[in-house]
Amino acid sequence: MSEKNTTTPSIQLPEPTLRRLPWYLAYLSTLRNADVEYISTTRIAEALDVDPSQIAKDLSFLGIRGKTRIGYQVEALEGKLRDFLAFDRRHYAVIVGCGSLGAALLADKGLERYGLDIVAGIDVNPGLTGTQLNGVPVYSPDHTAEIVASCHVSIGILAVPVETAQAAADSLAAAGVKAIWNFTPSRIRVPEGVVIANTSIYSHLAVMYNRLSLLDQ
Amino acid sequence: MSEKNTTTPSIQLPEPTLRRLPWYLAYLSTLRNADVEYISTTRIAEALDVDPSQIAKDLSFLGIRGKTRIGYQVEALEGKLRDFLAFDRRHYAVIVGCGSLGAALLADKGLERYGLDIVAGIDVNPGLTGTQLNGVPVYSPDHTAEIVASCHVSIGILAVPVETAQAAADSLAAAGVKAIWNFTPSRIRVPEGVVIANTSIYSHLAVMYNRLSLLDQ
Repeated sequence: MSEKNTTTPSIQLPEPTLRRLPWYLAYLSTLRNADVEYISTTRIAEALDVDPSQIAKDLSFLGIRGKTRIGYQVEALEGKLRDFLAFDRRHYAVIVGCGSLGAALLADKGLERYGLDIVAGIDVNPGLTGTQLNGVPVYSPDHTAEIVASCHVSIGILAVPVETAQAAADSLAAAGVKAIWNFTPSRIRVPEGVVIANTSIYSHLAVMYNRLSLLDQ
Repeated sequence: MSEKNTTTPSIQLPEPTLRRLPWYLAYLSTLRNADVEYISTTRIAEALDVDPSQIAKDLSFLGIRGKTRIGYQVEALEGKLRDFLAFDRRHYAVIVGCGSLGAALLADKGLERYGLDIVAGIDVNPGLTGTQLNGVPVYSPDHTAEIVASCHVSIGILAVPVETAQAAADSLAAAGVKAIWNFTPSRIRVPEGVVIANTSIYSHLAVMYNRLSLLDQ
């Protein structure tokens, strides 16, 4: 269950804006660590190679406006962004498919720092069920609904082979998850009302290889 | 070094097309495993929830056209896509930052299946240098240029903390990599002629959390 944000009302932001906000947050954290107190839109724009008017627009969605000449107060802006992005709140997740990529995601402590708490792994392999991977217990798919309900799981992470991606997504949706984070290179369909996020890291490889092949010419 | 594609001339495809091609490939592999011989654009479109005219357009970039009524021959289309996407060729890479995310990427055998061969890890931590992670040797940053040159490395994978992302990217570029795959939530700048691919998995979390918070309302 994703806890409700008590300070900032939830508003639907355009996806490109949402993707840029973590860049701003990362940059502001660096500035705060370096004891910088104020930062202008122009400086953020230079550092991140984003248009200054785009930054002002993105932040205005959150009701944040800089002061003329002074800009933004670094720590306050960082706090507002962290709060809005909900990285400080816990979002419970299960990961379906604990093979190579699934196990890798379980090993990434970074996800925890961004508010994602993976409470269980689910795998068809009887050699894995009953064991723990990085301290996370692995169950057979029969237990999906039970775990989702008892652990307030809102997010199902898909890291299964392409062939079983849709079936795994179907059983996650049936178990009651509210969002599916799809790491497979496959497209999946979800019932209406279920959020789908696709992170196909292999698709990014396709783009990179193509651009590299053009350099060679 | 990314070997040159000998069969298909390299052409610059739009990024959205390049991102969809691996979906088609994944679907075709599933069909071939199920001994399906021919597939129509309409069927692909239904399975992947992509507009049929979009699919025809994407494939025509590769000079592939289906036959009226019959559609595409599954195995031939799969082969052409695999060839074009260069997943069967080896692209040598180093990974800078062998902490949580870096080690996770080293553990993902999936990358190897998509043509990415990570030959070395690079880390500032003296506790890691000289060791192996999943069979991959870890070196100190002093050895970056030497490894890039001797192992024909074309891709540098960035998995360092935000604070050191730009500096690490700079030394990768100086060492001669042709592409940087940035997994940090930070924006980085690269010299002209160096390909940059951003895969900020945490940005996808930002989008997912926002969409989830709207469901709660």
